[in-house]
Amino acid sequence: MATDDLLKQVDFIKEIDKLKYIQRKTKLFNSNRHENDAEHSWHLAMMTIVLAEHSDVPIDVLKVLKMVLIHDLVEIDAGDTFIYDTQKNHTNTNEELVAAKRIFGLLPQKQADEFIAIWEEFEGGLTAEAKFARAMDRFEPLLQNTSNDGGTWAEFDVSYQKVYDKKKAIKNGSTILWNYAESLINQSVDNGILKKEKLD
Amino acid sequence: MATDDLLKQVDFIKEIDKLKYIQRKTKLFNSNRHENDAEHSWHLAMMTIVLAEHSDVPIDVLKVLKMVLIHDLVEIDAGDTFIYDTQKNHTNTNEELVAAKRIFGLLPQKQADEFIAIWEEFEGGLTAEAKFARAMDRFEPLLQNTSNDGGTWAEFDVSYQKVYDKKKAIKNGSTILWNYAESLINQSVDNGILKKEKLD
Repeated sequence: MATDDLLKQVDFIKEIDKLKYIQRKTKLFNSNRHENDAEHSWHLAMMTIVLAEHSDVPIDVLKVLKMVLIHDLVEIDAGDTFIYDTQKNHTNTNEELVAAKRIFGLLPQKQADEFIAIWEEFEGGLTAEAKFARAMDRFEPLLQNTSNDGGTWAEFDVSYQKVYDKKKAIKNGSTILWNYAESLINQSVDNGILKKEKLD
Repeated sequence: MATDDLLKQVDFIKEIDKLKYIQRKTKLFNSNRHENDAEHSWHLAMMTIVLAEHSDVPIDVLKVLKMVLIHDLVEIDAGDTFIYDTQKNHTNTNEELVAAKRIFGLLPQKQADEFIAIWEEFEGGLTAEAKFARAMDRFEPLLQNTSNDGGTWAEFDVSYQKVYDKKKAIKNGSTILWNYAESLINQSVDNGILKKEKLD
């Protein structure tokens, strides 16, 4: 007989399949095909195990993995918010909190509490693990856009300064990765795939 | 300046994007859309953090996560082999070993060695971590097929005994999960979505 806890866990496992239908604005490398949230989360997890050594401070890699694996599950209910959206602020909206409670709430209480806490820690961005996880979340689309002739920057006319301000969060997790990211951003300006604001 | 190691890591991160194009035979839950290997790997990672408590013996969850995240990367070169394929044996083909050396070989030597060892440990299926990771790999399509009126079992006319023999590997990782899986398989026969062989 399956325990109540296992049945709840299976319900959760089925529900989160919906993450595979949430389309992001960014596209796969050298591609016109949009990435979905499950693919994105897998890629961040891979980046975490490959790049963890570049964290400025020692991190609990297992916790970072949990963060990046679950960080977008709330979008099953709340949808993907484009990072450069000027109408809607991405940061921890009430809609996302309601979604977190519903989706993680499918799990046994103890796990639900643990996952909500990990998601909130990620959103808060204050701990070493959250800083590194958020660095991964900023770094992947940077690599994608530079491989796609500017990608979403070109498509949505996002300027250098806006990109720079968002990507700077990488610095909170890793100086080495930020130095590399900054050079990619500057190269993108030189290559003409990212434009500086015009001065009046 | 980016170090040589970081540039190798970025090359690897770009290369593995191709996993998102490798289509599996199985389909998403309650869906006609095929799952790809990146989505599958993400789902196994989620199942690992949710279900690890059901392992028969204590496991290193971080290691299991690494296994399930990377286990299908060789399919970028070798392609997906259907588990019920009667022509081609899935188990650790030479083609997959060559693929592992090429793909993990993009990483700095020390990481390449680590990842190849983890992949071989998964393929070997002998350690507690490999047994649990392989249980996850068997359990996800079972849940998918039962949600899809038999899914690949119906599509490729796979019989009860073949399914049972493949799924029995779940037992090596977790008695609790196997008991549940076995009941799902038996229910599938009762529901008519999985057929027993006809006796002559």
